[in-house]
Amino acid sequence: MVKKHDFAVDQVRRFLEPGPVVLVSCRHGEQTDIMTMGWHTVMEFSPSLVGCVIASANHSHELIRQSRECVINLPTTRLTDVVAKIGNSSGAEIDKFLEFGLTAERAHVVGAPMIGECHASFECRLYDDALVERYDFFIFEVVKAHVARSPRHPQTLHYTGDGVFMLAGKTISRKALFTKVS
Amino acid sequence: MVKKHDFAVDQVRRFLEPGPVVLVSCRHGEQTDIMTMGWHTVMEFSPSLVGCVIASANHSHELIRQSRECVINLPTTRLTDVVAKIGNSSGAEIDKFLEFGLTAERAHVVGAPMIGECHASFECRLYDDALVERYDFFIFEVVKAHVARSPRHPQTLHYTGDGVFMLAGKTISRKALFTKVS
Repeated sequence: MVKKHDFAVDQVRRFLEPGPVVLVSCRHGEQTDIMTMGWHTVMEFSPSLVGCVIASANHSHELIRQSRECVINLPTTRLTDVVAKIGNSSGAEIDKFLEFGLTAERAHVVGAPMIGECHASFECRLYDDALVERYDFFIFEVVKAHVARSPRHPQTLHYTGDGVFMLAGKTISRKALFTKVS
Repeated sequence: MVKKHDFAVDQVRRFLEPGPVVLVSCRHGEQTDIMTMGWHTVMEFSPSLVGCVIASANHSHELIRQSRECVINLPTTRLTDVVAKIGNSSGAEIDKFLEFGLTAERAHVVGAPMIGECHASFECRLYDDALVERYDFFIFEVVKAHVARSPRHPQTLHYTGDGVFMLAGKTISRKALFTKVS
């Protein structure tokens, strides 16, 4: 279990903009599910908007459409195998929290559970469903963010297709070249 | 200059899904521009769709809106300083190709120039402007892709905010855990 602290919702880009694979957890009624997601982008700082493709083939798609909520969780390389296995199984057949030994933590604002073993959890409400029908594209607002204090730059997973992940490497600053830092 | 070869447009996720900073080049009439972009996501394999936030404060915004085309170029760490400088200057004031010594290569399908020094260039046409007004969100179709043959996993830049970039690290395969590899 990773101890997380409140984090500014307008700063979640710090973790999402580098493009990591995330785990999306959801609940509708008695059913929960988790899916692995690589197709997402930050869309606005405030309100804190994140756009995500959640294909209708995913069991989570309907649960999220109905509940209009989810949690975007950030796994690190400690969870590499679990991330791959979650992406290659279906919530229609198994309870992924049970199957993969993950802890469903109660979120503060939404009904969807957070994943206790992740570095960060972003509670989301569906903000705009205009492109859900056409592209399975959900625009969420991050309404509450929880992040572990260290490490400052966790080693995230970045999917390149064909079963291959790129692991986050070192960080470098070019702040001196920035006229307005954001 | 990087020698690039034809690449399957339905496989551009291999380079874009890991979430790198990209350089978007465009042309409208006699004007060209380049911008640094971190807010993008793959949306579909075929047609090959990429969604991008191009804020209206960027000089490129209007050029792309008018021409309905652009090229998404993939820089590597060789271009780190140029990437930062492009993101901190305006095409309304300077010619970025000239200023930063970049080569404008003729694209095959679109009128926008490709950046010769980048590892990959994806020629794009505006596919859906439904969310441009509300979110500055452009959905492009990649109509032609050009990629260097090596390295297979180029060292890309991933922006975390505050002037700090994460550099792509090593790659690992978990193909054995994949039931259907895509």
